Order: sequence, then structure tokens, then C-alpha cells
Amino acid sequence: MKAPVITLLTDFGLADHYVAAMKGVILNLCPRARLIDISHQIAPYSISEGAYTLAQAWQYFPKGTVHLAVVDPGVGSARRAIAVEINGHRFVAPDNGLLTMVLASGHAAKTREISARRYFREPVGNTFHGRDIFAPVAAHLANGLALSRLGKSLADPVIGNFAKPVQIADQQWRGNVLSVDRFGNVITNFDWATFHEIAQRPFSLKLASRPSTKVNKFHSTYASVQAGKLFATQGSTGYIEISINQSSAAAALNAVPGTAIALKCE
Amino acid sequence: MKAPVITLLTDFGLADHYVAAMKGVILNLCPRARLIDISHQIAPYSISEGAYTLAQAWQYFPKGTVHLAVVDPGVGSARRAIAVEINGHRFVAPDNGLLTMVLASGHAAKTREISARRYFREPVGNTFHGRDIFAPVAAHLANGLALSRLGKSLADPVIGNFAKPVQIADQQWRGNVLSVDRFGNVITNFDWATFHEIAQRPFSLKLASRPSTKVNKFHSTYASVQAGKLFATQGSTGYIEISINQSSAAAALNAVPGTAIALKCE
Amino acid sequence: MKAPVITLLTDFGLADHYVAAMKGVILNLCPRARLIDISHQIAPYSISEGAYTLAQAWQYFPKGTVHLAVVDPGVGSARRAIAVEINGHRFVAPDNGLLTMVLASGHAAKTREISARRYFREPVGNTFHGRDIFAPVAAHLANGLALSRLGKSLADPVIGNFAKPVQIADQQWRGNVLSVDRFGNVITNFDWATFHEIAQRPFSLKLASRPSTKVNKFHSTYASVQAGKLFATQGSTGYIEISINQSSAAAALNAVPGTAIALKCE
Repeated sequence: MKAPVITLLTDFGLADHYVAAMKGVILNLCPRARLIDISHQIAPYSISEGAYTLAQAWQYFPKGTVHLAVVDPGVGSARRAIAVEINGHRFVAPDNGLLTMVLASGHAAKTREISARRYFREPVGNTFHGRDIFAPVAAHLANGLALSRLGKSLADPVIGNFAKPVQIADQQWRGNVLSVDRFGNVITNFDWATFHEIAQRPFSLKLASRPSTKVNKFHSTYASVQAGKLFATQGSTGYIEISINQSSAAAALNAVPGTAIALKCE
Repeated sequence: MKAPVITLLTDFGLADHYVAAMKGVILNLCPRARLIDISHQIAPYSISEGAYTLAQAWQYFPKGTVHLAVVDPGVGSARRAIAVEINGHRFVAPDNGLLTMVLASGHAAKTREISARRYFREPVGNTFHGRDIFAPVAAHLANGLALSRLGKSLADPVIGNFAKPVQIADQQWRGNVLSVDRFGNVITNFDWATFHEIAQRPFSLKLASRPSTKVNKFHSTYASVQAGKLFATQGSTGYIEISINQSSAAAALNAVPGTAIALKCE
Repeated sequence: MKAPVITLLTDFGLADHYVAAMKGVILNLCPRARLIDISHQIAPYSISEGAYTLAQAWQYFPKGTVHLAVVDPGVGSARRAIAVEINGHRFVAPDNGLLTMVLASGHAAKTREISARRYFREPVGNTFHGRDIFAPVAAHLANGLALSRLGKSLADPVIGNFAKPVQIADQQWRGNVLSVDRFGNVITNFDWATFHEIAQRPFSLKLASRPSTKVNKFHSTYASVQAGKLFATQGSTGYIEISINQSSAAAALNAVPGTAIALKCE
């Protein structure tokens, strides 16, 4: 029988003991689990960056994988915990928008509130639900527990407003930066499926952080572009990205996650 | 048969090849081992931060786990190497105080000097005992080797002075910062079991790095506190922590591991 | 049957989803694979640092290990992809010099171009061959695929000029810094086997980044050296390293990967 895979995504960083504590709790309950880190370097409390990163990664894992995600500024408050099943994958997370893009992926979703304390680690503290709730629940799911055992259906999961641009006029949209990767590529929330026409027609992208600079060239590979020139590209993420070959577009544009972007097509 | 778990904690960072070299050595000797990182981002040479982080993590792992810890400023000198068995867990480390809090955990401990060269990787170099001594010994322990085979009993392991506050007057103690986590929470060495009364009575905490600021509020959850206000909380570590909701208490107090703290109760 | 080991080395960092995407692709094709990170913090686009780090790590892993290495500034251009078998280990990488030191290790090597698209993940994008080519090919090799199935023999793999010093006069050589580790040790490309005589005779090492400072002491352990003094040592890497006990030699010498070094013996 194949060992179950559990992925982990948090904003806990890798220096502290928090991630190891979660892994230890999981291995007590599900010794066969394969533990794969997606990222622990989500910007602290950044639900949108966590949601984007999880959405980019989960689809590459085998069906049956359990995805454990914790970016949780509201820990200790009344925010709910949520478990979701989509296309053979299961997710556990605080119900704060962290699953926004997973839920928008177009597959049918079953959603449950996580409330059955028998699957928690006791005593449940006020500050570390990753260890006390999400890790043990993920381990039980990996062991075969049915999602329906966790709690009642949850019809209104929290959905963030960061996932899609809004149209503000004819041929004009307002979006935002989802993430800046290690190479300084700026990942926008303009999805390729909707906005791929910029590859064939005149456009301009303007970031609020550097409104004097317009990005109005499209190239399909980095290697074909002169060094130092800003350009838009399809990237590998499903979103339009802004790049400079072998340099940081984010630095050139002063972009950070959340920076507003105006798109105008002609 | 369950695959044995080996955890790793070092100050080697994740950029260099050092951690991978240790893992490769382990997998040669114990191919079934499950390798789980606790942290490789302990501040270089910081035995106290390593001791704290290891003490926070080990208890979450299953019995039978082998914990490999290397923060080793004295590598190449005459410092001893130590193996410890506590409550079904085994530890290998340089004998320099790195196991201080593990040894103070209240369980009976068996301690051995590691000296049996037959379990080392030859030739043993002067600069990388993690690879040449601790990794192969951890792998042999994971394979079932008895602790007693490693060397003679060691009755006087090195114990650090950073683990507990000292009382300096009636209702006054002097402690220190053990760690600053990714969220800027300041973890003190005032343990909750001894000092939990600050939740119910007047107190003040004052850090040597910012003596003009007194922390004298206690809250049991982050979410209940106004943004920007310093407060003490129980945290999840067993120690009193100083926090600001969604901001860095360490930055506000200029605190780093080792910063002295004065506690006064009334 | 032993689970196959696949190591991963990239310049992708650990914050983004890129490494997890590769691991997910691998686990779909080879669910039993043991995934071990060598490093994902190679300086962006630094082929020499990647080559050095891979060369330091691979030899510690068991025979049969597949090593997946991606530092790929030329992705999307016409650069080839290469698979190599050496001493029971297999490697997949872009053919850009990343295997320079692996190929110089003295073992016989079989080299193949990776061109058989049946082993790729379709569609192959222009920006992320780690996910679309190298991860699935590594998984197929771990499953037992013969190297010869990947493509035709490749007789002229790209070799970097960073691996060895050049002699410029009697008893004078010019080399360079390969890497600076977390402790500030400066790893040079002067290999110990060729240059070990500096342990016994007068020498001076001078870095272009701080030509006023000569390093002309050799010590075999850190612990025997006065704090603050620069010295050369054998290190654990097979190369001569420049160190300061418990401080950063790299900071003292302003050294970075690629800094030129002059060695003069007397």
C-alpha cells in the first residue's frame, strides 16, 4: 500500500521548532506519512501569498494527498477551521481565505467545519492550532478518516478578494501583485486564460509602486530578451508575470505582494 | 516494522552541502531512516538557542526517535561527544550544553560518552564531526545499536546556565531571552509552571535592551489584544513570551537571544 | 527492495512553490522515492556555486541515487539537457557546466543528451524545465529506466573554467573563491591533494577583494587558533579554506564566490 503524502504550508519559517512540532505530532498518529514541505516562508500573516502558493503547488501532487496549510493571524479568535475535499485531494486550514484559489479551481468541493475534538491534540492551546488541531486532523485524514467525521457541512467558506482583477472601464482592469519570487519575477493576478491576448495586441501594465514605468512588451521566453528590459510573459504559474532577464523586475518596479496594477488594452 | 525516525538540528544553514552530507552518510548506514529537520538555522555557535529549540521539539516525536544535534564551536578541541537516552528517545550531540534542557526534562537519563571509533566514519576530520561522528552514530542507534556500546558512562554532562532565571531579591528575578521567533515573539526563560501567577497579579518585565519600557499586561490570546500593545502571554512553549499582536515585540524591545530580563512581582 | 533516493539541488529558494511542484511531479511517477534536498539556496544563476555544492554532496549518498540539479539561466534557449552516470550515481541537469566537478571526479562517466520527450511532462513550458523535464526524467531513472533510453551519447558536455587554479609563474597560481559558507569560511578552488604543501612551507594567499591582507598561517583545527586571526586550513571540503575562529573570514576579506585569489609559495 502506498504511503500517504501530507504537504505542509505555513508562515512559521524554518528557524523555529514550530514546523518540527507539527511533523512530530503527525508521525505519532500516522508513522507512514510522507511529509513534503511546500513552503514555510509565506510572509507572516499573508493569507493572499499563502493562498497563491498553495494553489500553485497542490495540483502537482498525487490524488490522495492531504494538504495542511496554516497562515493564521486570527488564531485564538472565533474563526472557524475548515476541511475541503477536491478532486481526490484533501485540505485542512483555518477558514480565513487561505483556500480561496483552491476552491476556485473549478472542481466540485466538499467542505466541512473542523469541530470534532476527538481528533484534536489535547489540551488545545490558544496560540498553536497547527500543532493541536491541523496536524492531528491531517494525520487522521491520511489514515483514511472520512471528511464527514470532522464536523458539519460548511456552505460559506471565507473567500479572499485578491484572486482576480476587476474591470473598471472598457479594456481597463485593476489587479494586484500576488507574489514576488526569488528571481524578482512579479506574479500578477491577471490569469493567462483570460488575458492571453496581451501576447498579440498592444497593452500596458502600470504598477502603483512605480507609475512612471509602463510594461508594454510581451516575450514568450527569458532568453530571447535583451538584459535590463522589462517585459510581460506567460510564466509557469498560469498568471501573467513581469520579468527582466537575469535581473529583478520586482526591484525595478518596487513591487511587493499586494501592489496594485492597472492593465489597459488597446 | 516501522521505519526509524532521525531528527536533525544544527547551525549549518540550508545553503551549504553540510546537512546533505550528513543525510547521505545516514542513508548509507540506515536506508530506512525517516529524516526530519528540526532546524538548521540556529544562530551560528549559539548553544543556548540550539538547546532551547531542541527541547521544544523532541517531545512531539514518537518514542524510538533518534535526535542528532550539532552546534559545535569547540569542534577539533578536546570537548567530548555524548549520547543520552531519555524516555525512549535517544540523543547524540557534542557535550557542550546543547542537551541542557533535555537533561532537565525530569525523566531519568542514561548518558554515555561517544568514543567507540568503530561506529565513526573514517577518516575523522577535525572540522566536521557532524558528518564523521554524529551522523553515523545516529544511524547505528536507529538500526538498534545499544547506547552502552558507544562508550563509558558519563556522569557529568556539561550543563548551561541559560536555562532558568535566578532569584535576586524578594519577588525579583533575573532571566534572559532564549529565542526570538519569526513573528518577533520574545521567548523568555521564565517557565510557565513556576511563574504562571503573573496572569493573576501585578508584575513588570523589563529588558536590558530597552529599560525604559515595562511590560505589565498579561493576555491569554493574541486576538484579544489591541494592535501595537506589548503584553506577556503563556505562548505555546512552556515559557512566558512577550508579544505584540501582528507585529514584532523583539523589534520594539531590541531583544535578541541572551538579552537580560528583570521580573518584579508585587 | 530499497526505496530509491533522489536528491535535489536548485537556485529556486524555499519560499516559492517551485521545489514542491518538482517533488509532486516526482511522487506521481515514483511514489516510493526518498527526496533529499541538497540545497535550494544556490545564488540565483550561479552555475559555479551549484557545481561546487553538488560535487561536495553527491559522494556521501548511496550508490543508485539519482541527483537532480537545476541552475538554469539559459532555460528556454537552445542549451541541451544532460544525463550522466558515474560510479553508480546518475545525474540530470541542464548542460551548462553544472556537472563540471562531477565529471572531473576521476570515475568513468556515461553521458547522454536528454531528448526523449516520452519521459517529459507535457506540455513542456519555456520557463520551468525543472518541473517539465528534469523532475520526470529523474523519477523514471529512479524507477529503473536505462540512461541510454533518454537520448544519444553526448561527447562534449559543457565544462566550466572555475574548477581549478591556473599556474601563472614558478610557484605562483591564480584561483578563485568557490563558495562562502554560513560561518564565513572562504572555500577556494585550491584543492588539498595538489596544494597540501602549504601546511609545511611558507606561502601567501591574497584575495583581489582585499589585496592589502596576506593570509600566510596554516592551522589544522579552528580551536587552536587565536580569535580574530586569519588562517588557511584543510577544511572538510577537499579544498583549502580561509577561516577565522568563530568569526567570518569572508567579511574580513570582502570575499564572494568568484573573487580572484593569488597563491605564492616560497
